[in-house]
Amino acid sequence: MESATVVQNRVYLFGGEKTDGNRDMKNLLGGKGANLAEMSALGIPVPPGMTITTEVCKEYTELGKDKVYELLREEIEQGVAQLEKTMGKKFGDPKNPLLLSVRSGARVSMPGMMDTVLNLGLNEKVLEGLVAKTKNERFSWDSYRRFIQMYSNVVLGLKPRTKEDIDPFEEIIEHLKEKRNITQDTDFTVQDLKDLVYDFKDIVQKRTGKNFPSDPWEQLWGSIWAVFDSWNGDRAVYYRKMNDYPEDWGTAVNVQAMVFGNMGENSATGVCFTRDAASGEDRFNGEYLLNAQGEDVVAGVRTPLEITKTGSQRWARLAQVSDEEREETYPSLEECMPKMYKELHVYQQQLEDHYRDMQDMEFTVQEGRLWILQTRNGKRTGAAMVKIAMDMKDQGIISDKEALLRMEPTKLEELLHPVFDTEALKKSEIIAQGLPASPGAATGQIVFFADEAGKFKNTILVRMETSPEDLEGMNRAKGILTARGGMTSHAAVVARGMGKCCIAGAGALKINYKERTLTVDQREFHEGDWISLNGYTGNVIEGKVATMQPKLSGEFAELMKVSDTYTQMNVRANADTPKEARIARNFGAVGIGLARTEHMFFEVDRINAMREMILASTVKGRKLALKELLPMQRADFEGLFEAMEGQPVTIRLLDPPLHEFVPHQLATQKELAEDLHISLAAVKSKVAELHEFNPMLGHRGCRLSITYPEITETQTRAIIEAALNLKEKGKVTKPEIMVPLVGTLSEFKEQERVIRQTAEKVFEERDERVDYLVGTMIEVPRAAITATEIAEHADFFSFGTNDLTQMTYGYSRDDAGKFITIYLEKGILKHDPFEVLDRDGVGSLIKMATNKGRKVNADLKIGICGEHGAEPSSVAFCHEVGMNYVSCSAYRVPIARVAAAQAALIQG
Amino acid sequence: MESATVVQNRVYLFGGEKTDGNRDMKNLLGGKGANLAEMSALGIPVPPGMTITTEVCKEYTELGKDKVYELLREEIEQGVAQLEKTMGKKFGDPKNPLLLSVRSGARVSMPGMMDTVLNLGLNEKVLEGLVAKTKNERFSWDSYRRFIQMYSNVVLGLKPRTKEDIDPFEEIIEHLKEKRNITQDTDFTVQDLKDLVYDFKDIVQKRTGKNFPSDPWEQLWGSIWAVFDSWNGDRAVYYRKMNDYPEDWGTAVNVQAMVFGNMGENSATGVCFTRDAASGEDRFNGEYLLNAQGEDVVAGVRTPLEITKTGSQRWARLAQVSDEEREETYPSLEECMPKMYKELHVYQQQLEDHYRDMQDMEFTVQEGRLWILQTRNGKRTGAAMVKIAMDMKDQGIISDKEALLRMEPTKLEELLHPVFDTEALKKSEIIAQGLPASPGAATGQIVFFADEAGKFKNTILVRMETSPEDLEGMNRAKGILTARGGMTSHAAVVARGMGKCCIAGAGALKINYKERTLTVDQREFHEGDWISLNGYTGNVIEGKVATMQPKLSGEFAELMKVSDTYTQMNVRANADTPKEARIARNFGAVGIGLARTEHMFFEVDRINAMREMILASTVKGRKLALKELLPMQRADFEGLFEAMEGQPVTIRLLDPPLHEFVPHQLATQKELAEDLHISLAAVKSKVAELHEFNPMLGHRGCRLSITYPEITETQTRAIIEAALNLKEKGKVTKPEIMVPLVGTLSEFKEQERVIRQTAEKVFEERDERVDYLVGTMIEVPRAAITATEIAEHADFFSFGTNDLTQMTYGYSRDDAGKFITIYLEKGILKHDPFEVLDRDGVGSLIKMATNKGRKVNADLKIGICGEHGAEPSSVAFCHEVGMNYVSCSAYRVPIARVAAAQAALIQG
Repeated sequence: MESATVVQNRVYLFGGEKTDGNRDMKNLLGGKGANLAEMSALGIPVPPGMTITTEVCKEYTELGKDKVYELLREEIEQGVAQLEKTMGKKFGDPKNPLLLSVRSGARVSMPGMMDTVLNLGLNEKVLEGLVAKTKNERFSWDSYRRFIQMYSNVVLGLKPRTKEDIDPFEEIIEHLKEKRNITQDTDFTVQDLKDLVYDFKDIVQKRTGKNFPSDPWEQLWGSIWAVFDSWNGDRAVYYRKMNDYPEDWGTAVNVQAMVFGNMGENSATGVCFTRDAASGEDRFNGEYLLNAQGEDVVAGVRTPLEITKTGSQRWARLAQVSDEEREETYPSLEECMPKMYKELHVYQQQLEDHYRDMQDMEFTVQEGRLWILQTRNGKRTGAAMVKIAMDMKDQGIISDKEALLRMEPTKLEELLHPVFDTEALKKSEIIAQGLPASPGAATGQIVFFADEAGKFKNTILVRMETSPEDLEGMNRAKGILTARGGMTSHAAVVARGMGKCCIAGAGALKINYKERTLTVDQREFHEGDWISLNGYTGNVIEGKVATMQPKLSGEFAELMKVSDTYTQMNVRANADTPKEARIARNFGAVGIGLARTEHMFFEVDRINAMREMILASTVKGRKLALKELLPMQRADFEGLFEAMEGQPVTIRLLDPPLHEFVPHQLATQKELAEDLHISLAAVKSKVAELHEFNPMLGHRGCRLSITYPEITETQTRAIIEAALNLKEKGKVTKPEIMVPLVGTLSEFKEQERVIRQTAEKVFEERDERVDYLVGTMIEVPRAAITATEIAEHADFFSFGTNDLTQMTYGYSRDDAGKFITIYLEKGILKHDPFEVLDRDGVGSLIKMATNKGRKVNADLKIGICGEHGAEPSSVAFCHEVGMNYVSCSAYRVPIARVAAAQAALIQG
Repeated sequence: MESATVVQNRVYLFGGEKTDGNRDMKNLLGGKGANLAEMSALGIPVPPGMTITTEVCKEYTELGKDKVYELLREEIEQGVAQLEKTMGKKFGDPKNPLLLSVRSGARVSMPGMMDTVLNLGLNEKVLEGLVAKTKNERFSWDSYRRFIQMYSNVVLGLKPRTKEDIDPFEEIIEHLKEKRNITQDTDFTVQDLKDLVYDFKDIVQKRTGKNFPSDPWEQLWGSIWAVFDSWNGDRAVYYRKMNDYPEDWGTAVNVQAMVFGNMGENSATGVCFTRDAASGEDRFNGEYLLNAQGEDVVAGVRTPLEITKTGSQRWARLAQVSDEEREETYPSLEECMPKMYKELHVYQQQLEDHYRDMQDMEFTVQEGRLWILQTRNGKRTGAAMVKIAMDMKDQGIISDKEALLRMEPTKLEELLHPVFDTEALKKSEIIAQGLPASPGAATGQIVFFADEAGKFKNTILVRMETSPEDLEGMNRAKGILTARGGMTSHAAVVARGMGKCCIAGAGALKINYKERTLTVDQREFHEGDWISLNGYTGNVIEGKVATMQPKLSGEFAELMKVSDTYTQMNVRANADTPKEARIARNFGAVGIGLARTEHMFFEVDRINAMREMILASTVKGRKLALKELLPMQRADFEGLFEAMEGQPVTIRLLDPPLHEFVPHQLATQKELAEDLHISLAAVKSKVAELHEFNPMLGHRGCRLSITYPEITETQTRAIIEAALNLKEKGKVTKPEIMVPLVGTLSEFKEQERVIRQTAEKVFEERDERVDYLVGTMIEVPRAAITATEIAEHADFFSFGTNDLTQMTYGYSRDDAGKFITIYLEKGILKHDPFEVLDRDGVGSLIKMATNKGRKVNADLKIGICGEHGAEPSSVAFCHEVGMNYVSCSAYRVPIARVAAAQAALIQG
């Protein structure tokens, strides 16, 4: 049975007479394989090939190489036979050789993560045939040289692992260049290339103890295994972790006939985008290199040229290159190969129309014939993501639901990051100009090596170019600046994916890794010096530049409008000050879900009154001190209520342990003693008394206010008086008083009693009333478990998922970093539960509490106010359990709004 | 309708023609009321009276005095009319006055907790009539004097609140005694008593601004309200808290015709027990005073005499009184009033037979007529509890089930407390002799005031006599010594109830409160001096005396046998050393439920190897240090396995955070640095690195061993090698390896993998196998919530209820003391959840985990190993959820066995 369906089983063909797959088979064929099949079916000129499925990758992990070889051999041989037939060439045949590429292809693109081998099938015999057939000795030997280098690196494991390691092949090349006194690869003679080939083979023999394999089939199988192995390589593992991609997806392997962009001046290679991946503008753009292999473009080693004439002109303006010089030295593909350009333009439109999304394509021109090597949905910045989706919606290409579902909510954060202050920019000194490869505003201290990106708090990684090994460091740095490479260089593509500011190809930079210096126009910058990158303009600026809030584009507002059409949950903000409240409201928050009152006490004019309260040994003393605080608190609440006029404001009563408010340094203790006219010893003794072994589980939250009910009395009075004061001015307030850290019904009842009694007292005094709610945080596991009883008395539940996660897992946020990192590395945890809500554990408690609560109190208002309130998968969970709202920090409100709308769309 | 059923509603009659209640109505009538009704129905001579139900007490709390007066008035008046009819006297009628007593009576006895008023109904007119009728002016005026004093104290609130306060009445009495140069109350002349009455009335007028009430009805109502008020008095509240009695029980009020033991030499009053309340011996015993009121006996002011002749003789031996002197000065009731004694003896037998339990009775002889005032199940020591129950079982009075259910398991602890070492006792110096009022061995520093019982760590409270105000201090002290009072004095009764060592009536002691000295035979002891009390013999010993393990009596062994007939759960012990394991086994433990391995590392010869392991920065370094520890750990386990041969031993892998093992003092840090040949800075930096803000929620438990799997490897190897070594010697072991602090399935799986791999390796090395289990603590809420998954892989669950309680409540055991005390006082918590398992919260999680676990793994062994493992109500809960075993500290194993048997009996 197996041999009968063999081709359908593990290997799928495309390009030739027969195309087995289509784009819906990404899980099985990987993104690249599925798209190659799809393109091939569309009639796009794709080099023929075959895809080994991701299932085989899993088999490889489970069964091992030998077993998989047995399972796969027949299908691969049949597949190669098909390719030979389609291309009219023969694999390993010196007379008419078929060369192959072997590439990885996971279900989503993981740029630079996986290894690739090109020019496969060459050996000395085949090489002779290739020379004879192409009549291009240089090209042939260069291909062979490249193949040996690539194969040795990828398959034979000669790739240097750290920056201290020497790349043996590069060393030989540099050595030869010195000897021959040349600087460019292209200056090598044919003899040079032959020498390199022999030297390369020598080094392989020395390093591996074996001859470089000359059997094309051995080469092919070695490459296939290497791709599978790369799925579990460090870089791939890290990338998956960063992006939450599960390990068991596996990668497909694409074996494809080679086409060459480096067969002379009528050959070229490039990448292009149907729209602008940085800004989202609807303009075809891309870059190419004449007489080059595709890897040269993305590797960033040679700075490529623009594809379109307008793009080229724009680049020249930025790079301060005259149009004459540009036309001569940096012509666009449109100008240089107008026929190829025209054909490419047709295909890009066809592909975008077909996929109904922005495409990122790779192409090669081989001796005047255009091949499309790949197309995929292009990675894009947050801004581009919004603009492209909204544009396509307006252009009628996609529906508004589809546009909404295309959002990755967390990417919106990029749009909400501060930008450079316009005035500050005017005064700043621009030291260099590069390509605005990924927008943003980054200020940091220079580092030159990716693994040192954590050296300072804010760093700018400055490199000649970046490579996949730099990924982790790029993620840590605030911004990336490269001297080489274009808009599609590794640095640019990865930075855009990360939403990180990047300037690429700033050619004026001279970087000396050894000295750790960056020189521009004779000015020298050192490691640790501050620079700023303007990712919108490509300006590299000296020193720090002040930032300001971004103005949100029309597309962004449009997106919010679309979201609100579908959303069912409200989005509130966690805000402690009127300023934060106003920002949140601007971002569309419809209330405050968490106003922490303790922050108010840390302000200079209040902390002493607070400390006086803490140091008082009697109720009377505490009441006196609290009396001082009352007008300040009241004013705080008036400000909050005013900023959120007409919308609910949830105020949490004092939560942190008192020791957080007292001074722990001798000097400040002395000061306090003097200010309060008490002895230093009394201060010290109180501080010592307040010390706790596990403050997170200590005397805080409602435990404090049950011990000292006068705190709740004062805070309630301040809230109610503030609300009454606003009512006097004709303003509507909706105060919601929230009791923190409730674990038992009796705690809540006791606090509720104090709150309601105090409120009634104020109402009587003022002969006026306001409506208000009394509810509780659900942040102690016991509260969730006993939610039935608590819900009978509470007006609302607000899940404090930070504490709830701490107690459900028994992880102290302050200490767990140590082992959570290890847990993530070892796969014990899939996510940090403080970032992504843990559905199985914490989520179970939330569900339990919600169900129990609603059962006895159908009107119970339920929300979440932990850090998870804007994390999309957590927001989806909140929707699922039927919460009324999520609450998150002001800047993340738009993210939560989109995530909530998506949840409503997906879950209904 | 209300008036039709009025008598049945709120007031129940007894004694006269009609008895409404019986002993099954304790909840409604209180223990005293129900028993009075029961006795009266049995034909026992009980002074007639009526009981106001406990329901009225609740109404009083809810509705207030005025409303209850309306509800109650008619019934009380009808009741008094009935008493008048039965006694042939009339309340408030000078010609033939009926005097009443008003007493509290909750459903269980709360000795000294509640207030009582006697001789009620007297005023100057009635007094004249009483004198005329009794022809006993002295008795009449003394009764009036006592009434005023008692009523003023109880009802009018003149009772002194603290020891600094002066009792105005006592002051007047003392003053008069000085003036008259007499020492005894009995020396007062009639005129003296008259003077006292007037002086008393004066002081009442001065203090309250009102005349002492002369209206008998006003007196009656005032007394009723006072009893209800006393239910919420400080003493009663404290007593309820200490004994876990709910507030809403309320107290009944018994209004009863007065009989007088102080009407001359043919009158007497006393208390008696059908068996010995201290030892449990089956001998009738008790004490009486001639010509006295009942309160005089228990107040301990006059040392009473023994009831039986043998008892009297025994006392004389202890007190070194000659038989002649005894007969003359301290005759027994048996000798002094043989007819009364005979009658009393009949009733005591009748009552014990009826109630089938040891009875504690109060009686009065009024002018040659015996009245039984009260009977109730007598309070007893733990030893007496066991002996009486086992004796009654053997005597065929009760079944073995009944005997078992009569145990209060926690009282068994008294039997398990150390006793004085026999050898040490021989060398000790006895400084005084008293009555062995409550058994035990207590050593402590002398304090003279109850509220100073916490002044030293171990205190002996030394008093002339104790009173209900001293309760809290008595509970704090290790032992109680009084100079006055007998076996039924307040001190003796309360101490027996508390299971606390007490010597009463050590007459040779001279106590000077002011100087805080205790003088015996010219030797002076001061506050803070050490003395020891032997509660078995009544010996007061100078200094400290060494203790030893108690030998358990035959009745105790019998009890254990009975328990084991019914018990369904196993009882294991928490034991870390072979010594503890042997003790536990002796107490009947059938396995170890928790052996903590970390304690083993603290021993002097190991701590440095442990520290070396912690300070190692590489896996290799850690492995080297662990290699040193391996043989020690193996030896530890061999010892444990040997001690528990054939029984399961659950070994918990390393649990505490590493910082607990490193030195925090500079000097020891220096030492360590030298020992390990590393720099002090390295030690300090490691110590700093290990610091955590919330260590309870930090890097500990399996989080440690996942970070450093070599720890688990070493511990597993030690366990398995130890088991194999024992197997070589032909001994059976049942190791159960327990992973601590699991919160996620993947943690458990990861540790299980390391354990099983290591075990297999050892099996291979030794070419021999042993069976072992791998299970986990369930102590993190998340583990309970996700128990389904974990149970699929674990062989057993052991609930670590200490940590589970910490995390479910969010209470740090180290810090929560502060607010838990306040919570208990305010009634926010009913129990400290670290003492009594919280069924609603923590219990829900346990139930959830047990159900989920058993569903997927029917063989899952389930137990508990927290501090709750011997707390009876928690043990009952464990039975309820179907656990296989409970595990507790060695000394509490018998308690757990009885509690488990009771649970099985009650729940089936």
